[in-house]
Amino acid sequence: MGVTASDISRFLDELTLEEKASLLSGSDFWHTQAIERLGIGAVMVTDGPHGLRKQAGATDHLGLNDSVPATCFPSAAGLGSSWDPDLLRRVGEALGEETRANAVAVLLGPGINMKRSPLCGRNFEYFSEDPHLAGELATPLVQGIQSKGVGTSLKHFAVNNQETDRMRVSAEVDERTLREIYLPAFEKVVTRAQPWTVMCSYNRINGTYASQDPWLLTGVLRTEWGFEGLVVSDWGAVDDRVAGVAAGLDLEMPASDGINDARVVEAVRSGALTEADLDRAVTRVLTLIARSQAALAEPGTTDLEANHALAREAATRAAVLLKNNDGVLPLERETLSSTVVMIGEMARTPRYQGAGSSQVNPTRLVSALDALREHGLDVPFAPGYPLAEAAGAVGQERSDSELRREAVDLATGRTAVLFLGLPAIDESEGYDREHMDLPESHTALLREVAAVADRTVVLLANGSAVTVADWQEQADAILELWLGGQAGGSAAVDLLLGDAAPSGRLAESMPEQLADVPAQLNFPGENGVVRYGEGIFIGYRGLDATAAPVSYPFGHGLTYTTFAYSDLAVDATPVTEHTGEGDGVVAVTAVVTNTGARPGVAVPQLYVGRPASQIARAPRELRAFARVDLAPGESRTVEFALTRRDLSHWDTVTGGWSVEPGTLEISVGASSRDLPLTATVPLEAPARRVPLTAYSTIGEWVADPAAGPALLEAMGAFGAMFGPDSPEPSTAAFLTAMPLVKVPLMGMSGTFTVDDLDALLERFGTR
Amino acid sequence: MGVTASDISRFLDELTLEEKASLLSGSDFWHTQAIERLGIGAVMVTDGPHGLRKQAGATDHLGLNDSVPATCFPSAAGLGSSWDPDLLRRVGEALGEETRANAVAVLLGPGINMKRSPLCGRNFEYFSEDPHLAGELATPLVQGIQSKGVGTSLKHFAVNNQETDRMRVSAEVDERTLREIYLPAFEKVVTRAQPWTVMCSYNRINGTYASQDPWLLTGVLRTEWGFEGLVVSDWGAVDDRVAGVAAGLDLEMPASDGINDARVVEAVRSGALTEADLDRAVTRVLTLIARSQAALAEPGTTDLEANHALAREAATRAAVLLKNNDGVLPLERETLSSTVVMIGEMARTPRYQGAGSSQVNPTRLVSALDALREHGLDVPFAPGYPLAEAAGAVGQERSDSELRREAVDLATGRTAVLFLGLPAIDESEGYDREHMDLPESHTALLREVAAVADRTVVLLANGSAVTVADWQEQADAILELWLGGQAGGSAAVDLLLGDAAPSGRLAESMPEQLADVPAQLNFPGENGVVRYGEGIFIGYRGLDATAAPVSYPFGHGLTYTTFAYSDLAVDATPVTEHTGEGDGVVAVTAVVTNTGARPGVAVPQLYVGRPASQIARAPRELRAFARVDLAPGESRTVEFALTRRDLSHWDTVTGGWSVEPGTLEISVGASSRDLPLTATVPLEAPARRVPLTAYSTIGEWVADPAAGPALLEAMGAFGAMFGPDSPEPSTAAFLTAMPLVKVPLMGMSGTFTVDDLDALLERFGTR
Repeated sequence: MGVTASDISRFLDELTLEEKASLLSGSDFWHTQAIERLGIGAVMVTDGPHGLRKQAGATDHLGLNDSVPATCFPSAAGLGSSWDPDLLRRVGEALGEETRANAVAVLLGPGINMKRSPLCGRNFEYFSEDPHLAGELATPLVQGIQSKGVGTSLKHFAVNNQETDRMRVSAEVDERTLREIYLPAFEKVVTRAQPWTVMCSYNRINGTYASQDPWLLTGVLRTEWGFEGLVVSDWGAVDDRVAGVAAGLDLEMPASDGINDARVVEAVRSGALTEADLDRAVTRVLTLIARSQAALAEPGTTDLEANHALAREAATRAAVLLKNNDGVLPLERETLSSTVVMIGEMARTPRYQGAGSSQVNPTRLVSALDALREHGLDVPFAPGYPLAEAAGAVGQERSDSELRREAVDLATGRTAVLFLGLPAIDESEGYDREHMDLPESHTALLREVAAVADRTVVLLANGSAVTVADWQEQADAILELWLGGQAGGSAAVDLLLGDAAPSGRLAESMPEQLADVPAQLNFPGENGVVRYGEGIFIGYRGLDATAAPVSYPFGHGLTYTTFAYSDLAVDATPVTEHTGEGDGVVAVTAVVTNTGARPGVAVPQLYVGRPASQIARAPRELRAFARVDLAPGESRTVEFALTRRDLSHWDTVTGGWSVEPGTLEISVGASSRDLPLTATVPLEAPARRVPLTAYSTIGEWVADPAAGPALLEAMGAFGAMFGPDSPEPSTAAFLTAMPLVKVPLMGMSGTFTVDDLDALLERFGTR
Repeated sequence: MGVTASDISRFLDELTLEEKASLLSGSDFWHTQAIERLGIGAVMVTDGPHGLRKQAGATDHLGLNDSVPATCFPSAAGLGSSWDPDLLRRVGEALGEETRANAVAVLLGPGINMKRSPLCGRNFEYFSEDPHLAGELATPLVQGIQSKGVGTSLKHFAVNNQETDRMRVSAEVDERTLREIYLPAFEKVVTRAQPWTVMCSYNRINGTYASQDPWLLTGVLRTEWGFEGLVVSDWGAVDDRVAGVAAGLDLEMPASDGINDARVVEAVRSGALTEADLDRAVTRVLTLIARSQAALAEPGTTDLEANHALAREAATRAAVLLKNNDGVLPLERETLSSTVVMIGEMARTPRYQGAGSSQVNPTRLVSALDALREHGLDVPFAPGYPLAEAAGAVGQERSDSELRREAVDLATGRTAVLFLGLPAIDESEGYDREHMDLPESHTALLREVAAVADRTVVLLANGSAVTVADWQEQADAILELWLGGQAGGSAAVDLLLGDAAPSGRLAESMPEQLADVPAQLNFPGENGVVRYGEGIFIGYRGLDATAAPVSYPFGHGLTYTTFAYSDLAVDATPVTEHTGEGDGVVAVTAVVTNTGARPGVAVPQLYVGRPASQIARAPRELRAFARVDLAPGESRTVEFALTRRDLSHWDTVTGGWSVEPGTLEISVGASSRDLPLTATVPLEAPARRVPLTAYSTIGEWVADPAAGPALLEAMGAFGAMFGPDSPEPSTAAFLTAMPLVKVPLMGMSGTFTVDDLDALLERFGTR
């Protein structure tokens, strides 16, 4: 039973009030409500930003039981590190195919919240600490999925940046920070890819539940951004359902036992909710059902082998080579079996995805040891540490120190490849980490192995930044694999052997220590409130502003060759009142050259700084990047175009985007802290007109071309006190900062009266 | 013409409405309004936290012209560094005498705002970054002044922690931060010393001007703290005068040209303001006039020579010996003239106070060179750098490099004593600093001199922390003099020669770099708003929480001997519901021993930490200190008593002070980062009862002794999912954090319904 777009207006006439209300919540954990009488069928939605999590058979009441096998791609922390929009599109297409083949209408992802703290338990499901990067990568993912005739759910809208108390906590965030940090990735995906649905978050924002916030769900999302799809609640995110319908929350999930449906009916009857509000939500639910029909009618098939291969490619592109002293990587294949040992249970029992709603039942699972065997390579292995999750693994029966001793014996005089990482229990939806350290059993293993090994290579499996400062000196190379999905083991071996070259770059900073992250002073908040006191200063913005050392900066990643940057050229055209938000303003070109002996992928990054800004600014912000395949010796010119919006900040006075005229610093290079090319150019833009009021300062009045001279004339001799020729510079500074209204009230100028002030306001200002 | 207390009720009957209103503002810049008809005289108030600034003759319209000579004591940054309540009392007595002798009723000080940022232009007028220390020192200062029958004005109430946009800016501060950081020093002084007046600040707090904030001026100040005096506006701080009268702002200063008086009259006529509100303010103004009469009738005299001697003593006690390698200080008097050279214009032209309303016309001014001459010592001198302020100084006519060359020639092979510091223009009321560095001409001089000198001693003159990290390695000793007042030169020489030993301790941290200060991310704010995003983490609290290195920590200071700390004993008695705020809860003793060869003053400091707190905490907070004179080899046991209040935090849920039970960490030592004694003891206190609601989490319900078992019973089998024996630890964690209301709505438990929830709420909770 289906519904087509043309049926919708008819249904609105035929549906009873109760039926309409029933359409606004699920029929169970995963399905919309059907109205059999009118032939309106239910559609199914399922979890899974990096793989389908479709529960088999009857759903349980937690939505957490086994699901049908599906390809498990690297989680978003890995996909984000690829800086590869084309890869994201292809992964999206595969996800879309699997979704369609399983007769599912909407895949509940991607999650694009910002990584405000490394401790957020769900960081593995998110792309980056930078909104530009997250938006640029999530857009093709959504486009790829939806190209297969199924929907996505962009989540968690908005400011869901921690798991602690997520269902109650109020994120207290000023609007500039919202507009510049927490909303732009959503804005980019909504305006460019029109996801079928957006999922509202559990938390409150400045006191109002996202699930019933008209500013967020209607004002920003629809009126400003033009969102055309449906808003669905995160599972259980509804507080006041009636307020939610009015605010723009169309679909509540899962079922609420008929309770909220009845409240909606009652509210319409009492007039607390208009029928128009109800019909609008019903229309959106029916529209979602309607647009699902084509795919449901022809589910098609998907090639799981091809998807596994894509998962393997994605995992290689996700990996970030943090360090590679003396070119220890790639390893030499010829002598591998005699010179290299594999250490760490995670080489045998992969840590490849996080826990919670994103947990996929993979179609296959390849460990690094499996992958080596597939290559016909027989490499000695020792587990090195126990893994609680590895049921039946040998490690569990032996003590840490026994396991370490065995590993040390094996590694002596060899190249040791250590698989280290976070235990699965550390990274899950529902709670946050309490620190960012590897387990002591892992770092102790590294310490002892590195002391005897010829060379030491560390491979990391983790879904969010970890501390490396206390152990990284012991490693000759570090390859960050993130949570690599079902083919992560193959990818690791491909990279170790040089069959693939690392091409990932950090989408999140690796701070030296948690205490260096400004947000930690207010994380995770207390008593139901978390103040985003650091404002815009999350990720590299905060670490750069506090001049904190980092282990590895945002944007960093090595490969098996080297690159040089040269020939920066910047062409800035003046911004005028007619320049549109999307119009190009600054054109930048630079040349990147492969200076090594192997092919490789460069990721030139463009950062913008505003060194003499009148407002608080991060030292630099990512505004563009490219991915460039280069043969040895090859050079390529990369071109970047910055739009008016790219150069804007959110002006809290005017409540809009504004370009500040003045010095623009354009830097291009290999990471946020490796920027060999920098150009400083003037940017022309209309001077901001601050409306003059009685509370405008003397300085602000004097700066006005029309009002300034009139004020000085009215002030008479007193004007000399703060003019450019003031006899007392500190008095001049003092007076310049004084609101004009104070002068006549305090009787400071003998001649300038309240009447004079009123006359000036009449001519030049607003009261 | 005067007024006595018994006249007041009669005056209230006899005064016309217009006359009453006129009493609520000044008659000019410095005087209250007289009512000649009734024989009510005007009284005078004058600026001057560290010295009287009484303008001679007719006042100008800025209140900034010359004032009568008065003793200029070290500014508060120096007095704060003394950690010496007895000194503050004696300085207060001298200030009180000078005030009285000049027929002034109220001295407008002290200023006790917190040093949120090293850049605040007025930091030199404030005591500390720590509210405990500021309160402990300002209290005896106020008591000392008022012991002479004149009043004080505790300022700037409140949250006036920057000069930038001070007349408009809204300081956005959460209540816990207000209560724990920005208000306690005011609270301590008000409750212990009852200043005659409190001066409201210019700024807004969370959107409301302090001058018309009933919560601040009446709720907190009077109802909670029991303030009995008068609230006066900072000069020109009034926005809406009528709202101010209603809120508790009694006296507007200066005159507002009759405009606001007329508005008050109109408001009473229209009923917008009650006559009771008006009479209350009038009564307080008349009371102030009345209590001034005794002193005005007998002004008495003051001994300016004795006050100068006290200023000299205060300056020696204010100085902080930051560094003293190889005991380079004190210098040897015998060989001084042949081995030591003085370098730096500030040795000849002292930088001894800041600019703005606190600027005193000193009775004398002794430079270090003057002081050496008074000692009969003839030491070679070179200015080393030009000083814009030193009109007529030789330095002005020569270039930096010429001056440096001369100084380098003089210093070669000698002990160079360099007087460095901030130019006067850097530190003033009315604007903030833009960086915390010494002038390049000073650091260049040091670099060049240190390269050739035998030994290098730096004396610093500055009113707020400066960067020393980039040059301190070049100095063998650093003596921080702050702004030492009119006898600062004598004090410097007394300390250099060892006639006095340094005994000051840092009342503000010396961070390595400005970027390490968390508040800088939100300083000074923009567009009229400054968010105190760092919350309680200012000063050492922030530097410790972010594990930032510091050049010199809060509390640090060396002297010419050494001390050892031993024998910490901590006795904690349980807090009960009957324990009063001022009751002793924790008794601490420790022994401090002079382990060197000279007498000296130890300043043992007690810090409290709450390592396992449920809320965000600074790693440690100063809660007590002592000043102990010790002869060589002498030991003394110091005793500290911590009250319930000392151990409390502000609970945002209950809106009151609360003691958290659990681990208490008591540390005693020589600075915030030199704490050789630490004890960890359990603190018993009543468990906080969080009212159970539908939005309380499953975990909170289960933790309740009565409600927990009832909930588990109602949940049936579902309870096993999150109980201690849960088969899935991550699911258990997930569920424990879920608000109970979600369970029936999401149909998660087959048996637990909305009715069951309602029944539980009926028995155990509130809706």
